[in-house]
Amino acid sequence: MVANPKFLAATARVDDAAVKSLPNSRKIYVQGSRPDVRVPMREISQADTLAHGSGEAVAEKNPPIYVYDCSGPYTDPEAHIDIRSGLAPLRARWIEERGDTEELSGPSSDYGRERLAEPKLADMRFDLKRAPRRARRGANVTQMHYARRGIITPEMEFIALRENQRLDAYPELLSRQHPGQSFGAATPRVITPEFVRDEVARGRAIVPANINHPESEPMIIGRNFLVKINANIGNSALSSGIAEEVEKMTWAIRWGGDTVMDLSTGKNIHETREWIIRNSPVPIGTVPIYQALEKVDGKAEELTWEIFRDTLIEQCEQGVDYFTIHAGVLLHYIPLTARRMTGIVSRGGSILAKWCLAHHKENFLYTHFEDICEIMKAYDVAFSLGDGLRPGSGFDANDEAQMGELATLGELTRIAWRHDVQVMIEGPGHVPMHMIRENMDLQLKLCQEAPFYTLGPLTTDIAPGYDHITSAIGAAMIGWYGTAMLCYVTPKEHLGLPDKKDVKDGIIAYKIAAHAADLAKGHPGAQVRDNAVSKARFEFRWEDQFNLGLDPDTAREFHDATLPQQGAKVAHFCSMCGPHFCSMKITQDVRDFAAAQGVSEQQALEKGMEQKAVEFVKKGAEIYQKA
Amino acid sequence: MVANPKFLAATARVDDAAVKSLPNSRKIYVQGSRPDVRVPMREISQADTLAHGSGEAVAEKNPPIYVYDCSGPYTDPEAHIDIRSGLAPLRARWIEERGDTEELSGPSSDYGRERLAEPKLADMRFDLKRAPRRARRGANVTQMHYARRGIITPEMEFIALRENQRLDAYPELLSRQHPGQSFGAATPRVITPEFVRDEVARGRAIVPANINHPESEPMIIGRNFLVKINANIGNSALSSGIAEEVEKMTWAIRWGGDTVMDLSTGKNIHETREWIIRNSPVPIGTVPIYQALEKVDGKAEELTWEIFRDTLIEQCEQGVDYFTIHAGVLLHYIPLTARRMTGIVSRGGSILAKWCLAHHKENFLYTHFEDICEIMKAYDVAFSLGDGLRPGSGFDANDEAQMGELATLGELTRIAWRHDVQVMIEGPGHVPMHMIRENMDLQLKLCQEAPFYTLGPLTTDIAPGYDHITSAIGAAMIGWYGTAMLCYVTPKEHLGLPDKKDVKDGIIAYKIAAHAADLAKGHPGAQVRDNAVSKARFEFRWEDQFNLGLDPDTAREFHDATLPQQGAKVAHFCSMCGPHFCSMKITQDVRDFAAAQGVSEQQALEKGMEQKAVEFVKKGAEIYQKA
Repeated sequence: MVANPKFLAATARVDDAAVKSLPNSRKIYVQGSRPDVRVPMREISQADTLAHGSGEAVAEKNPPIYVYDCSGPYTDPEAHIDIRSGLAPLRARWIEERGDTEELSGPSSDYGRERLAEPKLADMRFDLKRAPRRARRGANVTQMHYARRGIITPEMEFIALRENQRLDAYPELLSRQHPGQSFGAATPRVITPEFVRDEVARGRAIVPANINHPESEPMIIGRNFLVKINANIGNSALSSGIAEEVEKMTWAIRWGGDTVMDLSTGKNIHETREWIIRNSPVPIGTVPIYQALEKVDGKAEELTWEIFRDTLIEQCEQGVDYFTIHAGVLLHYIPLTARRMTGIVSRGGSILAKWCLAHHKENFLYTHFEDICEIMKAYDVAFSLGDGLRPGSGFDANDEAQMGELATLGELTRIAWRHDVQVMIEGPGHVPMHMIRENMDLQLKLCQEAPFYTLGPLTTDIAPGYDHITSAIGAAMIGWYGTAMLCYVTPKEHLGLPDKKDVKDGIIAYKIAAHAADLAKGHPGAQVRDNAVSKARFEFRWEDQFNLGLDPDTAREFHDATLPQQGAKVAHFCSMCGPHFCSMKITQDVRDFAAAQGVSEQQALEKGMEQKAVEFVKKGAEIYQKA
Repeated sequence: MVANPKFLAATARVDDAAVKSLPNSRKIYVQGSRPDVRVPMREISQADTLAHGSGEAVAEKNPPIYVYDCSGPYTDPEAHIDIRSGLAPLRARWIEERGDTEELSGPSSDYGRERLAEPKLADMRFDLKRAPRRARRGANVTQMHYARRGIITPEMEFIALRENQRLDAYPELLSRQHPGQSFGAATPRVITPEFVRDEVARGRAIVPANINHPESEPMIIGRNFLVKINANIGNSALSSGIAEEVEKMTWAIRWGGDTVMDLSTGKNIHETREWIIRNSPVPIGTVPIYQALEKVDGKAEELTWEIFRDTLIEQCEQGVDYFTIHAGVLLHYIPLTARRMTGIVSRGGSILAKWCLAHHKENFLYTHFEDICEIMKAYDVAFSLGDGLRPGSGFDANDEAQMGELATLGELTRIAWRHDVQVMIEGPGHVPMHMIRENMDLQLKLCQEAPFYTLGPLTTDIAPGYDHITSAIGAAMIGWYGTAMLCYVTPKEHLGLPDKKDVKDGIIAYKIAAHAADLAKGHPGAQVRDNAVSKARFEFRWEDQFNLGLDPDTAREFHDATLPQQGAKVAHFCSMCGPHFCSMKITQDVRDFAAAQGVSEQQALEKGMEQKAVEFVKKGAEIYQKA
């Protein structure tokens, strides 16, 4: 089917870039209660701690560290990766076993059928051999629906194991964690499948898991779980092809993207999305209004419910896991944006505002909200209720338009929950630091603790080219306050479309923010990896310091810029201070002295001080007198 | 004197790199009460706002924006820059006029005389034509001493004008500022010389201004002023020469370094420092113990008060503006570090800990603290009381050793203030978000509101290679809480010595943190520049958006990566969304429609909605009915 040789070559390139373990890392699987619940993790091995001054004697074995791993089979050397075949449908049996879905004869959306029938697309079409599934008539196949009926799905068990990150492996490191300060949320020390179920039933967490995306590895978004990050990819009218977008996806998950949103607005949106989903082990989100707008040639006023509805079904049957739906952009909020510094900056929000104004009618996503719920529950697509009126500048933060919309999103949350459809709420945007907390507090209150999913927020507007940093500050803070997922911002924000380097830079900045938030909340075990890095650093285990970090490649490259020799990686100093000034080396000297005394470190320090002092006083204590 | 042609060529290179205005920027001087008080600022001009859909008609003139400018004469095309001659001694007359100093016949430190007499150094020695100055016997020449006697120095007047940033130029933009949330500090709307004096007298702010650094442009560090940032430079035993360090300094101030610390520990420390100071318009800080240690070949136990004292005098007479003095590392705190994850990570702290242990004596910087005050008040060097026991990992944050030392720094602050010597307090380090506030609150209490000067703090340890980001998060937060100056961290932290790119990356991350803090505190006028960027962004004034940002070069380069054509810089969209999806464009369409109606925007929006609706209903309203 895929015949175009140029296209073949381009997709093949993806394989090479994506299939490679990170250094000193090994993919392991934690076995669940049934053979097909196998939860992937990354095991980072560490070198031994050597006894100081005693050659190669091992003073201490350092345990391997287990970290949450979003990279899917790509980093498993045992896995057979072929972008053209897609990933194995990990969840297919779980979905079938539930017996509440049926296989369709083919896409049920008009557009889906049209694209499948178009001979000109044969060259670039992903060759999917199975037909889409849908809930049987009257059935509801959402994870929330199961949870509310007390069912623990294999997805929930998978998630519990995944979130626990094998913390049982190192009780000692676990005990060395600061208590943290959480704002009302409560994570148990050990996350059980029951806890996952209860949080999903309560609406405080979601499991984005479309039945047509069986390739995905279950994950959860909620404030009592690890803070997650999303990476946006997607082409625009001006750039980027299918292979590039698939490559960005595999690249994003390699560095830690927990979900990926495909925001394509350019050519071949349908086909691009198919390739991404078929190859993605993480949930995929979209903003369906983007594609709907393309179908009416960019004329917002020509959008109709019918076109939108067909687009939803088209994407549900491809396997999109969550939809941004801007149903809170109500007609009477729009005039509130007129005096803003930067008007409406959400693309979806501005499209719907234009539609509302053109028709002087209420937003059709709002009037058709229950229809949308009916569709989404037949595939288990989660809502990401869009903040179409989010502020586009610090000046516009927390204004009436934004907060009015947030209240409407709360109302819509209650409606979705009546349908057992999972919901998260999108949040800003551009907010100075002192106004961030208010966003979180209001969101929890107005939306009954549905998970918050924010874009940054950017804490200042004066640094175009560095908005991954302006926003990582806000993201870390709002994550601490309770946001469940942080949508990354890349250095190219406001300036252009991110390339692979930007995607990685955005991901790393957001992994930092998410992890800083986990630490501040005192999330169980969040500090284990920090402690391991710190210990490796202190003991001059350079390779371990690199490998335990978020980006081993860059750490190694920076170190080697001044000390490229292999010997420098076992040196007890670095180029920052050189041997004389290395504080860690000096501290180690003090400790070695202690150890040599054969008593406890603290006693030894005191003992050593006395002993040494005698020696020094003999040599000429008088020179130390006050002049 | 400077004869080595290779050296000449290297220093000449600095000139080229440093002397260039930023785009669309002009150096202006605000005139004070006397002709020689001329306060430099950067004026960024903006394009006009064009009326939409009306060709080139000007709808609005946008005022130039005035920003605080650390770059000194380097960005003034009128200035004659020659690294080999150094900068003009701007403050020389003010210092002489006070009549409380005397010119010495030459350096009064042994080491300073020795270096001057060494023929082998002729090739690399800066050719300073004037002799050092010192307070007349019994005089105290600190800005704090003057302030406490009610004197407003030209330095103070300069600072008041500088901090005000010509806010009077745009009352309209000024009115569009969020109120902010400050934690006890209070900045008046207009900063007067009297306010500067009172804050300095109170010890809540310092003006680092050594009488032997007359080339410096006065600046202030205190929490009721703009948050400042420091950039560290300096060679190590393993790398970097004099010309490179001077180049790093000019590079650092170009991007916004408010002060620069020369942390050299390598070759020719004395000569390197001389070149840096003679060419620096910003205060220079050092850690004198580093050089003292070099003088005893790196053997901490051989350090003596005499060697240290001579080093202080040597550096006072070169013009260092503030000294990090680790006088709080007391003998009985050292055992408290034995159970830490990362021991002592301050270089100075570890040197002194080693000395204390070796001698079983109290830290000689503590026992000689009043002697040090006597020296510093004769030159007006400010204390930066070093946190030698700061945590080197999140695990060690806020422990007994750290907080014990902080209490001692409070005690030393009171002693220094008895001598009218200016003091700031150094702070951590590595601190998870939820433990940052405690640092600030304790510092204010224990150190009587002396300015806090923190290194980050880093909010997680898992991202070597990205510690400018892990720490910018903590820096922004602690800046908001009240820290007066933020010491930058570069991407090379923990890995190697920063090069020029790292210096810039560190500076920009910290300008972001400092400015985010100013915004959150509601510092007067902090939001003006944000509003200007936001407005330019909304109006597609691409060049203005670039130029008003912290780094115009990078913003332009990122934009041009996808749309390099000059035409794209006037386009009403960018490559992120393309023309159809540009939310700003759509919002503008809505506003244009409003403007065309000739009524107020808000009314027009409502009016327009009705009018448009009629049109659309006629065309087929039925298709918008619920299906």
